[in-house]
Amino acid sequence: MLAVYVIEIIGTVAFASSGAMIGIRKNMDIFGINVLAITTALGGGLIRDLVLGITPPNMFRDSSYAVVSILTACLLFLLFRLRRELLSGHFVETYEKWMNVMDAIGLGAFTVIGIDTALQKGYKSIFLLLFVGVITGIGGGMIRDIMAGNTPFVFIKHVYACASIAGAVACLIFRLFLGDTLAMIIAAALVVLIRLLAAHYRWNLPRIQ
Amino acid sequence: MLAVYVIEIIGTVAFASSGAMIGIRKNMDIFGINVLAITTALGGGLIRDLVLGITPPNMFRDSSYAVVSILTACLLFLLFRLRRELLSGHFVETYEKWMNVMDAIGLGAFTVIGIDTALQKGYKSIFLLLFVGVITGIGGGMIRDIMAGNTPFVFIKHVYACASIAGAVACLIFRLFLGDTLAMIIAAALVVLIRLLAAHYRWNLPRIQ
Amino acid sequence: MLAVYVIEIIGTVAFASSGAMIGIRKNMDIFGINVLAITTALGGGLIRDLVLGITPPNMFRDSSYAVVSILTACLLFLLFRLRRELLSGHFVETYEKWMNVMDAIGLGAFTVIGIDTALQKGYKSIFLLLFVGVITGIGGGMIRDIMAGNTPFVFIKHVYACASIAGAVACLIFRLFLGDTLAMIIAAALVVLIRLLAAHYRWNLPRIQ
Repeated sequence: MLAVYVIEIIGTVAFASSGAMIGIRKNMDIFGINVLAITTALGGGLIRDLVLGITPPNMFRDSSYAVVSILTACLLFLLFRLRRELLSGHFVETYEKWMNVMDAIGLGAFTVIGIDTALQKGYKSIFLLLFVGVITGIGGGMIRDIMAGNTPFVFIKHVYACASIAGAVACLIFRLFLGDTLAMIIAAALVVLIRLLAAHYRWNLPRIQ
Repeated sequence: MLAVYVIEIIGTVAFASSGAMIGIRKNMDIFGINVLAITTALGGGLIRDLVLGITPPNMFRDSSYAVVSILTACLLFLLFRLRRELLSGHFVETYEKWMNVMDAIGLGAFTVIGIDTALQKGYKSIFLLLFVGVITGIGGGMIRDIMAGNTPFVFIKHVYACASIAGAVACLIFRLFLGDTLAMIIAAALVVLIRLLAAHYRWNLPRIQ
Repeated sequence: MLAVYVIEIIGTVAFASSGAMIGIRKNMDIFGINVLAITTALGGGLIRDLVLGITPPNMFRDSSYAVVSILTACLLFLLFRLRRELLSGHFVETYEKWMNVMDAIGLGAFTVIGIDTALQKGYKSIFLLLFVGVITGIGGGMIRDIMAGNTPFVFIKHVYACASIAGAVACLIFRLFLGDTLAMIIAAALVVLIRLLAAHYRWNLPRIQ
């Protein structure tokens, strides 16, 4: 399970920094930046736990995720506070490219961990398993965008939630043939793959116009 | 209970299409349209179940409501994709008139079903019963509007939430004299009646200015 | 515990009026004004109870808080309806100054009551206790602002959430040395003090720019 824990931490860092960056862009103070970081990193799991009746939610049983989120937000704050010019330069572009990759890893990790949490509570309903997988993956980002007053990114980003859905379905199928941990890692990798291909080739889902 | 089930499905279709239409108007992709449809149709019941401590929420025990929402959203998407001109013409006007009627049916159905759910869990508190009735009726639409970046419609539409409150009160009173199913149907009909009269005569609640 | 109950009611009145005033400013009807008042006054406690697994939430066991919120909203509505000129004059300025004080009292009261609720359910995790204290204090205002389409005030107001955090930490420390009620009252007073000093001297947390 160490591999799962490592990608979970990577995902937490990625999600926390995406939240912190929105706060930095909106010129929020350091508290607001931390709130958005924690919300993004832990919000999906919080909704999942409320839906599954896990109280208090898991984030309060293992506070390492909250600590990682706060550290991430404070480090980013310090970085851009000390080197303000980085915010407008070439650096941000490179930074966001890397963040995109880490965000994809987070999306994959959180999706399969959401399913795993429900399975370990004994739930069997396919619809419920898929739902909690996807909500764990995309929920934090949705709360972040609503709180920051933006249109939720799942409505805009190329094939974002669909990558999570595909990974959730794959995870359930792989579990029938493979060991649990292996199924989770392959399904998470699939999410990353779909998401990066979609971002690179600018895949879009059909629209009316 | 067949009558109740039928109006519940009608309400689901109406609420899902109101969500889908907002996504179509905002030129979202087919995934976003489905999310708004499901949110609107199932969101009120989800909040109700969290408040009542029903985990996992009922939407995961009977996935027919989610399936109906998805079918509704996909049908509407196909319709407007194939016949784009319908979006700007006379058709939308007629469509919205019918939707208003179905939405009123949904509001009535969801209000009385919300109360019924709480009663069957053994709750007696009048305030709780009224609250879950109204939140089941209006909660989905509120989440939909917040996610889509609109001012929640309950703050704007003529006598919308009040119709739900009146129906909830009526439902509790009728239950003292009539059979449960009959009380639910009459109370739901009362919601529809108030809502349609309010829309037609443009009833407004008092404001400061 | 009478002292605690009294400051809780003062906090409820303050929070309810801050919600009602936003509705009045946005020219909502009397229903919308009541919704914002109830949401602000009871929303924080509702989130706390969902996180702690208290179902149905406490607001449904003692409806006096809801009644106080509704009375507050209706009184304010009547006042500004009958004396419309008060909305633009000197009166609002004085009113908001007093509201600021009462809001600070509410923030302090709700923070320590949030912690107390979790302790009485037997929770020990420091992170959880701090979280529910702060979310009880600031949660209602955040929902109010999201519903009204404003940027949540915690991202803007001078040292608002930090006062709540400081009070939550103080409350836990004081409990080690003092009686429970005394610790709660001193910690709540500390929140009020920090908040009023911050508002008066316009303390700000650091930002990037």
